This record gives sequence, C-alpha cells and structure tokens, in this order.
Amino acid sequence: MKIAVLGTGMVGQALAGRLAGLGHEVTVGTRDVAATMARTEPDSMGNSPYPSWVQAHPAVKLATFAQATAAAELIVNATSGDVSLAVLEAAGRENLAGKVLLDIANPLDFSRGFPPSLFVKDTDSLGEQIQAAFPELKVVKSLNTMNAFLMVDPTQLAGGEHSVFVSGDDAEAKKTVTALLESFGHTDVIDLGDISTARGTEMLLPVWLRVYGALDTPMFQFKIVR
Amino acid sequence: MKIAVLGTGMVGQALAGRLAGLGHEVTVGTRDVAATMARTEPDSMGNSPYPSWVQAHPAVKLATFAQATAAAELIVNATSGDVSLAVLEAAGRENLAGKVLLDIANPLDFSRGFPPSLFVKDTDSLGEQIQAAFPELKVVKSLNTMNAFLMVDPTQLAGGEHSVFVSGDDAEAKKTVTALLESFGHTDVIDLGDISTARGTEMLLPVWLRVYGALDTPMFQFKIVR
Repeated sequence: MKIAVLGTGMVGQALAGRLAGLGHEVTVGTRDVAATMARTEPDSMGNSPYPSWVQAHPAVKLATFAQATAAAELIVNATSGDVSLAVLEAAGRENLAGKVLLDIANPLDFSRGFPPSLFVKDTDSLGEQIQAAFPELKVVKSLNTMNAFLMVDPTQLAGGEHSVFVSGDDAEAKKTVTALLESFGHTDVIDLGDISTARGTEMLLPVWLRVYGALDTPMFQFKIVR
Repeated sequence: MKIAVLGTGMVGQALAGRLAGLGHEVTVGTRDVAATMARTEPDSMGNSPYPSWVQAHPAVKLATFAQATAAAELIVNATSGDVSLAVLEAAGRENLAGKVLLDIANPLDFSRGFPPSLFVKDTDSLGEQIQAAFPELKVVKSLNTMNAFLMVDPTQLAGGEHSVFVSGDDAEAKKTVTALLESFGHTDVIDLGDISTARGTEMLLPVWLRVYGALDTPMFQFKIVR
C-alpha cells in the first residue's frame, strides 16, 4: 500500500520504518523538506534527528505534507496533537478526500509542565475534532495508548498478549486499520465503536504517564482481561 | 478491623459483605437509617434495596454516617462521587480525624445522559478534592477502575491476573489499603504515587464504559502487562 506518515519524530519514524519493512511504499510528510534534512540535533525527547534515522531506512521517502498525502492510499497522523489540524490543513483537502487516516496523536498540553494535561477531553476528543474538520477523511483512532516501539512491534512485550483499541465511524476503514495492526503483530484489537469513543482512549494518557512513572519504563501495555 | 462503609448501593454492599466475610466489624453508614430500612424497590441500576441485602448479611450493622465513622478505624467511601464531599461533611470532621479513607468513588456526571462525563478531571480529581477538603483524613484512591464484584473478589476473572492502582499521600495508609486489597485476592497492586495520580485512574472511567459497551459485560479488567 502507498502510505503517507505525517510527522518526523519518534512515532513517525517508528511507523514509517515498520511499514517500509513490511513492504509498503512509505513517504514521510513534513512541512519543509530542506529544514527537516538540515536537522543535526536530537529532538526535545532525545530522539535521533530525521537525517540520521533515514540513513538507516533508505526506502522511506521524504516529501511535503501535500506531496506525501497526494500519492497515498492511507495516511498516518503521527504529528503532535497540538499541530495535527494545521498539518492536515497544510496537506490540502484535495489530497485527503476519501482516504483512511490512522490517527495516533494525543491532545497533550505541556504548557503547565510535566505531566501534561489534555487540551480536549471527555466531551470531545482530538479524533472527533479531526473527523469534524475533515469530513472527507475516514478517521480511525488507534495505537495512541502505548509506546511507539510497542505500536509497531507488540511482540516485544509478553509475546504480544495485550490490547489495542480502534475508534471510528467507518467500518471498512476500521477493517483496513485492523489488518495493518495485525500485520504489526497485534492480536487483541478491540473495536470500541464510533469516533467519539476516542475520548476514552485519549483519556488513558494521564494514567499511562503515571504508570510510566511508577514502573520507570515505557515498555508496558494495557491488556483488557476478560 | 472496625470499618465504616459509606454508601448503601451496589458498591457499598459488595465492600461491606466481603469485609464482614473476612471477619471485619463492618458498619454501613447512611444519611437516614429509618429511610434506608424502609426501601422496598431496587435502585435505578436494578440493585437490591438495602433491607433485602442485609437479611443475607446479618453481621453488617447500619448506622448514620457519624455513628459509623466514629467507631471506625478505616472508612470506605462507596458513595456516588457527586455526594461524597457532603457525606463526609455529614459524618463530622471529629469522626474522620487521623483515619484512612479508601476512596472508591468516581466523579461521574450523568446530567447529559449515558455515557456520563466527569465533573472533575485532568487538572484535579475527586480524590484530591476529598483530601483537600478533609486534611484530617488519609485518602487512598483505589478500586475505582473495575466492577464492584471484581473489586472484592478479583479471582472471579482469570484467577486474579489483572491490576489495581493505589494513589495517596500517606505511605502507611497505602500499606493498610494494599493489605486489604491483597486480602480480597488482588495480586498486582500498583502504587502510582501521591493523591494527584487519582486523576489518571478516575480518567479511566470513560474507556472502561466504552469497553463495557464493546464487550457487553462489566466482567473485564485492566492488566498492566510489563
């Protein structure tokens, strides 16, 4: 599949690398290709700058948001939640029309420091905001409840015996995303319902952050035992 | 231990019955003992009225909030979140001083129908509101992330192989509550930190409600796989 991954950070790198490894034709989207390729410093979280990451992933192309999405059959939103709407606007509605958007972003607000709060929650969600702003997209919220390494290779932990959620209004789009998740190694994909159920998974972040603090590692996962 | 359970609904009944079964001296607290004993109809959730429940649990006493807490060494808040502060006020500060409060309540707001939203969240929590309003209590938030049957008998599901969180400012109080949880059968008690970490566990409710909808049963649990 031709896939655009929007975002050059840790989550974008993890998704792009894994998807390329599975044989997909992957283009990472960024605002300014030259500026992205000129980066030499790790980001604020200590992750590799994009140019050094891409050296190890030569099959992955880099293009503007518009170019990446124009060619894509499926789009992955791996941007920071606070810029997701602006990035999709920059991509251009004509390049989004009719496409599935796998939305991984969380509405984290770091303006009061750590731990972050959520800039939308409970009676609305980022997933819903994106779906409402871009009705031409088929938004499926998923993967936003775990560390990026576990998103793309869940078998790294307990043989993959843990859960991932999908939320979205379009049943076919959820099937497409579910198949992609299963190709990553996810075995327990729980369809929570329409895109409003993204409120619940986005609101998992605060407890995720506290469990991270308690366990001192991000390599843990929620499993729905039943 | 002498334990007061505040609240006569499903959660209060589950806790009181289990604690009495484990040999504790349990008094359920209510606003008006005569009114509670005059109930003949199930509550809005279809649960047994208190008088028929207590017939099967003759060791459990019923008293006013003040009487129940005055005699108690440990207090369980099993009231609805929207009345918890008023109930503790009615109990009387002199009856709370220095005691551990196991706070199970969630800040659910049903005013817009189902699913409920949360009346406090993200930058504050009900656990913190109770601790701030009653500094004489040692508040430990726990058990609020699961069905009442699993709170008191976790081995009913997957042999108890799932997780429960504790949040609170007082290390000794958390030890007391952890021992109580272990006596119920909980094997994975995760100490998230101070009472502000209750924000995270209270914010699990929205996804809990959506998983309930997706699975069509409340008999599931979160497990932190690591």
